[in-house]
Amino acid sequence: MSIRVPEGFLVAGVHSRIKRDPQKLDLSLVMSERDATGVGVFTQNLVVGAPVVVNRRRTPSPRIRCVVINSGVANACTGERGLRDAEQMARLAAAACAAEEDQALVLSTGVIGEFLPMEKIEQGIMAAAVKLGRSAAALTSAARGMMTTDQGHKVAGRTVRLSGGEVQITGIAKGAGMIGPNMATMLAVLMTDAALEPDVAQAALRAAADESFNCISVDGHTSTSDTVLLLANGAAGGGPLAAGSDDLDRFLAALMEVCVELAKAVAADGEGASHLITIEVGGCADRASALQIARTIANSPLVKTAVTGCDPNWGRIISAAGYAGVPFDPAAMNLRLNGTLLYEDGAPVEFDAEAVSRSMRESRDTLVELSLGEGKAAARFWTSDLTAEYIRINADYHT
Amino acid sequence: MSIRVPEGFLVAGVHSRIKRDPQKLDLSLVMSERDATGVGVFTQNLVVGAPVVVNRRRTPSPRIRCVVINSGVANACTGERGLRDAEQMARLAAAACAAEEDQALVLSTGVIGEFLPMEKIEQGIMAAAVKLGRSAAALTSAARGMMTTDQGHKVAGRTVRLSGGEVQITGIAKGAGMIGPNMATMLAVLMTDAALEPDVAQAALRAAADESFNCISVDGHTSTSDTVLLLANGAAGGGPLAAGSDDLDRFLAALMEVCVELAKAVAADGEGASHLITIEVGGCADRASALQIARTIANSPLVKTAVTGCDPNWGRIISAAGYAGVPFDPAAMNLRLNGTLLYEDGAPVEFDAEAVSRSMRESRDTLVELSLGEGKAAARFWTSDLTAEYIRINADYHT
Repeated sequence: MSIRVPEGFLVAGVHSRIKRDPQKLDLSLVMSERDATGVGVFTQNLVVGAPVVVNRRRTPSPRIRCVVINSGVANACTGERGLRDAEQMARLAAAACAAEEDQALVLSTGVIGEFLPMEKIEQGIMAAAVKLGRSAAALTSAARGMMTTDQGHKVAGRTVRLSGGEVQITGIAKGAGMIGPNMATMLAVLMTDAALEPDVAQAALRAAADESFNCISVDGHTSTSDTVLLLANGAAGGGPLAAGSDDLDRFLAALMEVCVELAKAVAADGEGASHLITIEVGGCADRASALQIARTIANSPLVKTAVTGCDPNWGRIISAAGYAGVPFDPAAMNLRLNGTLLYEDGAPVEFDAEAVSRSMRESRDTLVELSLGEGKAAARFWTSDLTAEYIRINADYHT
Repeated sequence: MSIRVPEGFLVAGVHSRIKRDPQKLDLSLVMSERDATGVGVFTQNLVVGAPVVVNRRRTPSPRIRCVVINSGVANACTGERGLRDAEQMARLAAAACAAEEDQALVLSTGVIGEFLPMEKIEQGIMAAAVKLGRSAAALTSAARGMMTTDQGHKVAGRTVRLSGGEVQITGIAKGAGMIGPNMATMLAVLMTDAALEPDVAQAALRAAADESFNCISVDGHTSTSDTVLLLANGAAGGGPLAAGSDDLDRFLAALMEVCVELAKAVAADGEGASHLITIEVGGCADRASALQIARTIANSPLVKTAVTGCDPNWGRIISAAGYAGVPFDPAAMNLRLNGTLLYEDGAPVEFDAEAVSRSMRESRDTLVELSLGEGKAAARFWTSDLTAEYIRINADYHT
């Protein structure tokens, strides 16, 4: 595991006064020194932020040069003016990076329904352009510039040894609330110095997102702005990774690891969370069924609050599986919590409740393993628990 | 509006020591002095409590005589022993009411996964049989005997003038948590002294439940025990209400009112709730679409916590509608909150946020009205808001 800015990329994050607190960064810039293949996956919400409209038009592309990101204002539900603002924001970023207008992508996150403060955005882009760099500090700043209610910044990376040499994959992400991705996700930007053709990159990103960002939730509320971008600039040298090659397989495995790590970081940072809950559902007829059951368990406030209370309340987990809308034989269900068998072949078993409760109190990680007797497919899903702090954050986060 | 026990019914509620607190009633008995048509609608959860298995076998029936209900233990996920216990509980109730075994129905609510304390149940049934009566106090006790985390008991009734004279419809219900009905509901027992054939009664109950108990949620978690029963004993005199008759139409309207009143009482009593949220979605292509959008808004923790905070945060409502999975044109959306227009033709409008917030602070009722431009169908849905008290109740409610 290694985190560094991939070859040919420069990054920065600054405070541009969108947020009041000068300690909080609110504008980030990611630049590729050469044309990069740029692909994205986007929210399936019908109501989308203006940046999603712009990025959908511009990707996939063989010649992306930069991504500009602001936090504090989502530029969603802002109509025609919002769309003009997003286009202008991309234009300013392109100019700062000596690129053409359609080589820039744009991401915004924060309050829905407010217009972007375009003067501050313009000044922020110019300030960020001056600071562009490749240091660990620059990467941290870029990750911090996308944060909203996040408690910490999120960076993950992998170095992959391919036949022609090493390539690097590094990603930054944000998200702590309004997390219920549906074929898309919160915000993340993945950079690699490997070379990828647009169609290969698009397939790689979709596959990785499907088992990472699409397998997390905090509150089950799919945002208007969910976006994951992948930029591949080939600066590590070597030609494009060929479909079906061993190199591409190794690259995909590492990309999946980076995406899973970032996605888990988002779920773990769920607003107010005291536990990261990993839900593994197996023994299903197909992966879609397993995922649907895992997601239903993850989104149950009763399951979440049981984990908050360190209570091995298996009845809430079993009953959530039962209303997932997937047919199965309840008499073949088995459930483990933090490794202890609680429910076997459709009936409760004797277990040391105090010991399981202690294991939940002593770790931020809770593992739920449910198996059915329908087949061999499985899925993993990650979510946060639900605490009074979540209520405080969201009842007080005024528009 | 009038609440009294319908003719030919007797009711009681007692403390049978299932619950520790002697102030809390935990066993109720509903008896019909003559054979009653008995029908039910039940949870669609695949994992069902033993009482659901028994009641599904015994309804619809033209000769039900009694319903026995306990709270404190749900007798769900209890396997073969649980099924035998449920059958024995019904047998004891039938004996106490001088009925045959298959004339008794049984309901249990409370903790999942524990076995019924059968000695206490037996003593409670005998104590309740002695107390059977028709007073307002007896009705209140019967409603209290089904309560779990409910803050108050739930009773509703209507007197309906038909061509042959008056009939009475009276219902009792419980529910405050694990409320996310799907083609069924929490627990409710509806009594009427009108005469109804089983197929007419079944259709009437299904229609009424679909626009009442199936249109509420607290936490979106469909329970293993949801059941609504309707007993019609004809004791008011007159023959069975004929399908298509004006009398049946009047009866159905009143039955719908009783069910809506009880369902709203369940949502209003949602665990820890500070607001009852009514969501009216109109302008849809069909009722199923309207209901799906209303349910999605109702189940969003971000919408709920905005109401908790008395925050007119329309972005959360609009974005929840967007991920409901129903196609529509976002540019034709209109939203009112407590009567004030916040969003018109897909764009925000200027409004007095402080005045709307004040209206939310000053009332327990919040009204969300969303209209689309797809058609003329509409649906109503009721939910509670989400407070820190909900977390306290469910993180501390130990198994």
